[in-house]
Amino acid sequence: MSTTLITGGTVVNATGTAQADVLVDGETIAAVLTPGSQLLGTDLKASVDQVVDATGKYVIPGGIDAHTHMQMPFGGTEASDTFETGTRAAAWGGTTSIIDFAIQRSGERVEDGLAAWHEKAAGECAVDYGFHQIVGGVDEFSLKAMDSLVDEGITSFKLFMAYPGVFYSDDAQILRAMQKSRETGLLTMMHAENGPAIDVLAEQLYDAGKTTPYFHGIARAWQMEEEATHRAIMLADLTGAPLYVVHVSAKQAVEQLAAARDRGQNVFGETCPQYLYLSLEEQLGAEGKEWGSFEGAKWVCSTPLRSRAEGHQDAMWRALRTNDLQTVSTDHCPFCMKGQKDMGQGDFRAIPNGIGSIEHRVDLLYQGVVTGEITLSRWVELIATTPARMFGLYGRKGVVQPGADADLVVYDPQGHTSIGLGKSHHMNMDYSAWEGYEIDGHVDWVMSRGSVLVDGSGYVGSKSHGKFLKRDLTQYLV
Amino acid sequence: MSTTLITGGTVVNATGTAQADVLVDGETIAAVLTPGSQLLGTDLKASVDQVVDATGKYVIPGGIDAHTHMQMPFGGTEASDTFETGTRAAAWGGTTSIIDFAIQRSGERVEDGLAAWHEKAAGECAVDYGFHQIVGGVDEFSLKAMDSLVDEGITSFKLFMAYPGVFYSDDAQILRAMQKSRETGLLTMMHAENGPAIDVLAEQLYDAGKTTPYFHGIARAWQMEEEATHRAIMLADLTGAPLYVVHVSAKQAVEQLAAARDRGQNVFGETCPQYLYLSLEEQLGAEGKEWGSFEGAKWVCSTPLRSRAEGHQDAMWRALRTNDLQTVSTDHCPFCMKGQKDMGQGDFRAIPNGIGSIEHRVDLLYQGVVTGEITLSRWVELIATTPARMFGLYGRKGVVQPGADADLVVYDPQGHTSIGLGKSHHMNMDYSAWEGYEIDGHVDWVMSRGSVLVDGSGYVGSKSHGKFLKRDLTQYLV
Amino acid sequence: MSTTLITGGTVVNATGTAQADVLVDGETIAAVLTPGSQLLGTDLKASVDQVVDATGKYVIPGGIDAHTHMQMPFGGTEASDTFETGTRAAAWGGTTSIIDFAIQRSGERVEDGLAAWHEKAAGECAVDYGFHQIVGGVDEFSLKAMDSLVDEGITSFKLFMAYPGVFYSDDAQILRAMQKSRETGLLTMMHAENGPAIDVLAEQLYDAGKTTPYFHGIARAWQMEEEATHRAIMLADLTGAPLYVVHVSAKQAVEQLAAARDRGQNVFGETCPQYLYLSLEEQLGAEGKEWGSFEGAKWVCSTPLRSRAEGHQDAMWRALRTNDLQTVSTDHCPFCMKGQKDMGQGDFRAIPNGIGSIEHRVDLLYQGVVTGEITLSRWVELIATTPARMFGLYGRKGVVQPGADADLVVYDPQGHTSIGLGKSHHMNMDYSAWEGYEIDGHVDWVMSRGSVLVDGSGYVGSKSHGKFLKRDLTQYLV
Amino acid sequence: MSTTLITGGTVVNATGTAQADVLVDGETIAAVLTPGSQLLGTDLKASVDQVVDATGKYVIPGGIDAHTHMQMPFGGTEASDTFETGTRAAAWGGTTSIIDFAIQRSGERVEDGLAAWHEKAAGECAVDYGFHQIVGGVDEFSLKAMDSLVDEGITSFKLFMAYPGVFYSDDAQILRAMQKSRETGLLTMMHAENGPAIDVLAEQLYDAGKTTPYFHGIARAWQMEEEATHRAIMLADLTGAPLYVVHVSAKQAVEQLAAARDRGQNVFGETCPQYLYLSLEEQLGAEGKEWGSFEGAKWVCSTPLRSRAEGHQDAMWRALRTNDLQTVSTDHCPFCMKGQKDMGQGDFRAIPNGIGSIEHRVDLLYQGVVTGEITLSRWVELIATTPARMFGLYGRKGVVQPGADADLVVYDPQGHTSIGLGKSHHMNMDYSAWEGYEIDGHVDWVMSRGSVLVDGSGYVGSKSHGKFLKRDLTQYLV
Repeated sequence: MSTTLITGGTVVNATGTAQADVLVDGETIAAVLTPGSQLLGTDLKASVDQVVDATGKYVIPGGIDAHTHMQMPFGGTEASDTFETGTRAAAWGGTTSIIDFAIQRSGERVEDGLAAWHEKAAGECAVDYGFHQIVGGVDEFSLKAMDSLVDEGITSFKLFMAYPGVFYSDDAQILRAMQKSRETGLLTMMHAENGPAIDVLAEQLYDAGKTTPYFHGIARAWQMEEEATHRAIMLADLTGAPLYVVHVSAKQAVEQLAAARDRGQNVFGETCPQYLYLSLEEQLGAEGKEWGSFEGAKWVCSTPLRSRAEGHQDAMWRALRTNDLQTVSTDHCPFCMKGQKDMGQGDFRAIPNGIGSIEHRVDLLYQGVVTGEITLSRWVELIATTPARMFGLYGRKGVVQPGADADLVVYDPQGHTSIGLGKSHHMNMDYSAWEGYEIDGHVDWVMSRGSVLVDGSGYVGSKSHGKFLKRDLTQYLV
Repeated sequence: MSTTLITGGTVVNATGTAQADVLVDGETIAAVLTPGSQLLGTDLKASVDQVVDATGKYVIPGGIDAHTHMQMPFGGTEASDTFETGTRAAAWGGTTSIIDFAIQRSGERVEDGLAAWHEKAAGECAVDYGFHQIVGGVDEFSLKAMDSLVDEGITSFKLFMAYPGVFYSDDAQILRAMQKSRETGLLTMMHAENGPAIDVLAEQLYDAGKTTPYFHGIARAWQMEEEATHRAIMLADLTGAPLYVVHVSAKQAVEQLAAARDRGQNVFGETCPQYLYLSLEEQLGAEGKEWGSFEGAKWVCSTPLRSRAEGHQDAMWRALRTNDLQTVSTDHCPFCMKGQKDMGQGDFRAIPNGIGSIEHRVDLLYQGVVTGEITLSRWVELIATTPARMFGLYGRKGVVQPGADADLVVYDPQGHTSIGLGKSHHMNMDYSAWEGYEIDGHVDWVMSRGSVLVDGSGYVGSKSHGKFLKRDLTQYLV
Repeated sequence: MSTTLITGGTVVNATGTAQADVLVDGETIAAVLTPGSQLLGTDLKASVDQVVDATGKYVIPGGIDAHTHMQMPFGGTEASDTFETGTRAAAWGGTTSIIDFAIQRSGERVEDGLAAWHEKAAGECAVDYGFHQIVGGVDEFSLKAMDSLVDEGITSFKLFMAYPGVFYSDDAQILRAMQKSRETGLLTMMHAENGPAIDVLAEQLYDAGKTTPYFHGIARAWQMEEEATHRAIMLADLTGAPLYVVHVSAKQAVEQLAAARDRGQNVFGETCPQYLYLSLEEQLGAEGKEWGSFEGAKWVCSTPLRSRAEGHQDAMWRALRTNDLQTVSTDHCPFCMKGQKDMGQGDFRAIPNGIGSIEHRVDLLYQGVVTGEITLSRWVELIATTPARMFGLYGRKGVVQPGADADLVVYDPQGHTSIGLGKSHHMNMDYSAWEGYEIDGHVDWVMSRGSVLVDGSGYVGSKSHGKFLKRDLTQYLV
Repeated sequence: MSTTLITGGTVVNATGTAQADVLVDGETIAAVLTPGSQLLGTDLKASVDQVVDATGKYVIPGGIDAHTHMQMPFGGTEASDTFETGTRAAAWGGTTSIIDFAIQRSGERVEDGLAAWHEKAAGECAVDYGFHQIVGGVDEFSLKAMDSLVDEGITSFKLFMAYPGVFYSDDAQILRAMQKSRETGLLTMMHAENGPAIDVLAEQLYDAGKTTPYFHGIARAWQMEEEATHRAIMLADLTGAPLYVVHVSAKQAVEQLAAARDRGQNVFGETCPQYLYLSLEEQLGAEGKEWGSFEGAKWVCSTPLRSRAEGHQDAMWRALRTNDLQTVSTDHCPFCMKGQKDMGQGDFRAIPNGIGSIEHRVDLLYQGVVTGEITLSRWVELIATTPARMFGLYGRKGVVQPGADADLVVYDPQGHTSIGLGKSHHMNMDYSAWEGYEIDGHVDWVMSRGSVLVDGSGYVGSKSHGKFLKRDLTQYLV
């Protein structure tokens, strides 16, 4: 068991900063101390195995990306990052924990889905990983199976109001699952879009010859996100279930969340970097073509990119400030343009839905600190502390405090990061959704449970390092 | 410089808990460590001057009461607690910092008011103290004087929309002062009640023979609090000033705060224990008399106690959960029934306004944890962490982290506290507004900057201990 | 063609009153004139066939009940009023037009449903009647059939978000039908309750042995009405369809309507007398039994009676004042206790849903004038003028003006009406939902298209009088 | 007493239209009849003195402009239209009633102000006129004087939250006056802008050299209108006074009105043509100068023109549709550029506030029918019916029904009106605020109390025709 002392840095936690050193002993943070080498007569620097100099830099808890889909099957293909490549890219980007999704489909057993995902991930991950459980077929068997999820450390499950025929749950199913959520303490996660209505619109657009990626966003109108968000909130109100709405992108959906929260409901929302920075207008492209080109497929994801003219992006940043949204995850679900996205040439409905951002989340959010959108403390809260609290990892993860796992990032506010293919891109994709973005900061050094994953020489981790995270119940309820 | 090790406790911070020991060196927290006596080979217990056993108890940052009025002149008398008696009572109750109010009246110099309050407090306080500046006469001189307040460590000032002829500012004055707030970073604090309208109502009630204390609450109708709150919010919106509304008691005022916050404004609200627990109905008394008795004078304060039937108390608790209110202060402003409150026999308008609670705030809020109104972390956030951030003390105060002042409380969740005269009451009052309240917890041990103020033997502090707090600008803006 | 002069009355229209005589020539109002017998030298009284003295009374347009279900098949039985008995009761109560519902079920042809209802009603009605079209199976055939509805004078259609397996439409179907609504101008009427979720709750209650009528109301929680109302509003927003929500009973549903209307959407709402006067508490019964008795079946209807403690009834009256609700219909759908309602002994789910009020609507709303809930003009607007405008009958119906059908009621504000079995009850029911209600007013005289239906001697109409109303498109859009 | 028959037209009332003839006998409408010459054997055309052919045209109640300021003293000058010139222009434009303002200033007697205005108007008006009472100095004397206003037929009074030192009332005064409003039934009219704050902003702008008319609008920020609107609403809520907010121009003020109305308060709002069509951007001018030119003085009025980019104009139209605003008046208060407006060269604060539109209101609103902003019925409701109901004239004015004053306009939807100096402009101004506006309609013929004022030959009225209108209490309360 080796010891490490991180000296001279500014420790950033969710409520503020401290000038403090951090002592790591084995896999754990042993102490947070006033700067300087002496403690009750002990010369700490001389006593530890290694000293990391963080002078002028931020020492933050490792990032937690609570929404990823490694090697997820979707529309006849599979997300292009494996657990190995995806978690390695995560480490490069300062993220030391992910929560991925085990999948149960209608007619399948929850236990089998979970076991399958355990098998995919075990021994493949550079960082620690947990699972949410997708319940794609709510019935008496899956409901019963949910009873044992808490013991398995799977303390959240996800339903879909979109994708009829695939993951879709109707309101009767949602109601039953939420009753289970109330009963067990499992957090209900919701993909809130009105799938049946959207599918009609998409079909009508296709039938009218409107087949380019741009129409993916037109079909998935904000009204259908707002509606489903409100419906989920009301079902949660009726059942008493805590609710976490994933990948919120419409400002009107935020208004629904804010209203529910003002009423005191345990309702939470997540957004993603793409909804903060990217827009439908850019997906349409600069060429001024009315319907855009297939290039737009790079940014086909659901919920879709929204119109900047309508102000959705500003609303997402504002909601991060007002805590009407609590977390930023990536919904990392990458597909290559060649061989995957191009399945949807001529029919936007066949484009695999997803964007890859796992490597860039910590940086992209830090840029919000630089531009004044959020404070330094809020940055850490959004990328680490609240995800930990939300998903039952706090204490072990998400905070720099003794007893916590030594998941630490040294972030250099004087550094610089260029994003794009051939730059800070280690995800298994043949393009970058973020090509050309420049960040005024840099992930210098990354540690996970006492092991260094990234240092000045680059990635030094291993795929045997990451362990499964048995999670506690959510720690964020009011 | 002595050293102390607090062992075996659960450190509670605003985002969660940790099993950790706390090492105090001199006036400062030197380290927060994993429990146990060893650190890199050093036997800590053996190395420190004293060891405090907090097993089974909470170790929390000392409470910060951001709204007190020691020995404040009001209506021809003076609040009955001096800085000496009031801060001693604070210490008894686990509060290790107060922020009191220096007063400038119309025609007076701000500098003189501030100097006078420095003189009153210096050498008299058991705990650390800071000042907000009341600006009772906004004019070119006081506006100019506000420029130097930040350097004095007075980073907030208070205006009154109530009390015409005393502290009242009209909207032109408020606008100018808020422009100064925007310019300097000073936080604008507001007593938000429409004084001119309330005074008409009070006079009409008096003229109609409705003179008992109960009519104090009738005159100060919730509409007049909601109105002033909204007006302050709009003036803040226009000027860009950060706004902190003091002693919020009406649910409709909270709705205005919530709406402004949802829009992204830097608007904050404080409530007080009396608005969480006490009501107009109780002030009226149990005897069923239509107009109550003079006994009701015990609870005459402004804003007034509100009707429980209208749901204000529930709304305050809910707002504490939703963070639509951010802090709980006491507005500690005690008056004795005999010789002070009784000046208003026959005319409720002459009753000195105020309630004393400084000793009980930490306990009364903890009771909200017991009853499930708030979480353990939220308790600490409300009584210490957010007050520190709001008023520029974070880092030094409000958090258990290295480098912070060693302001610490050991709180026993298995303890019990009975409130009332002759029980946990060390305030200089001849009655208790809280007579008969029973708390399922107990302040066991209190330390301020490394000095023990309260231990098992009782109060062991001294009035020479407390120092003036030069505060930074608010650290809570979004 | 005979002529009638109604003299000395106060003509009440939606915007105010006038002292005026009304001259009827044949089926039509020929003139509204200043009181007195002379016009340009003609002695009117002497020139007409009959003179009706309305001195001291109100002359109002005949009531329009826009929501009735005569002899409707439901749950294995049929509503107990035939077109004959139901429209005769309507006439007794001052209602001279009804709009009933023709039904298409899934798999059936819209044309056949409409034809069947024409057959049921033709030659059976005491008053004029129109139809809305229930589309219980939205598919390509029914959508196509909707194109010709406007030509048939059926300018509104109704969908159900409740009753899965019976009339239920899913969101994809609703979207398609609303697109048709937008395209044709047909008004979309919506039964807004989340049926799939409600059915789960109802089943769970039944399984838990909670089988009394009271649990009908518990299962149909307000959240499920609010949710469906909002969903319908969002689908209408997306498609541009005008929307009319039937039988609104939850105050939160009204809040959704009000918000949509404030945004400028063409969204309307109807409530019914039962939601203004009756409550869940009364359905539970006075005996204080926890679950009530089967007596409660008398008031089983959907949406259900709501809790008075929650304030729904007050909210309905207020919404009538604020025009957040625009009309009051009856949803007249009577069933006898013996042989019909009693099918649900032991299982509230088997109780036929419905209450009969067609005879009392004009009176019950007038009582709101007496108690100060609404103004005299608003009474006429709610019971006649707005229903006419909403459903394309204005000009012919709903207003006292020349050229309009001579549908007129003389209402005596000095009269009195006792409601109940054996009192003012001519509906084909073995009980009255309104037993014991006393009204401070009386329907004295009723005329439909120039024919007297009710006079001092009682009902003098005939079932061959009523004609089918081909309606224009809604005249109420903004 | 002569008789007139208007034949062949479409009578437009607030709830819809009718094909009907109108018979006028003396000063009064004697009958509204089905078209055609025969009534019970009488040949009407042959029996009357004159027949007016309105075939293809609208027959509407004469317009009521409820907010005018003829020859009003303001800032050392006087509004340029006298009662004679102003009411003649009104007649030209289809307005047959005005309600002007009698003025009481601080220290003056209400009775004297009213008497003075009676003297100014008597014998000078082409159309009927009433008065609201401005109470510029609320004190015990003016409050007492208000008791007799109802008997005088002055059933509304106006207060100002703007213009400190001139008409301004503080909140204590407003409260007392509103209590009087509640007590007597007088409608409280409010100029809702926070004057004290605005005056600070205006002075600061002036001191900064920002002196052009454009800065009039900058100083009068929407926040200060929204704030005052809300404050007035809360004081009305507290006192129970009915409230009518004049010249609403900010969308956020409308939101406050809408919220209060949804809660059921008797709160009403008026906008003016300038807030529907004109904007701050246009006042700034097309030349692209940063601060505009003095040309902008043409449109200096209070409340000011608002930014089109912020969407206020769209919000005003929408509020007219949603009935969150109930009336459109002109706030007619004209000043010439030469000798009046130019007093403010170099200081926007010295520009007399006001725009002249009395001649164009009926036309400008009709253009909203043409462009689809409002319906035909809503047009009549906004310009005549609701003003009549709001201000106690209904029955006599605002509706085409027997017994009403024969105030009638024949409006030609096939006509055309060009607005501007030398075109349809008979107001006493040396410019037009509406230069270049083109209307797709035309006021063809105007009658007031049976006397023709305008016919094909032009104005044929006389200044001795108009009579003072003793008004009843408002008829619009819910």
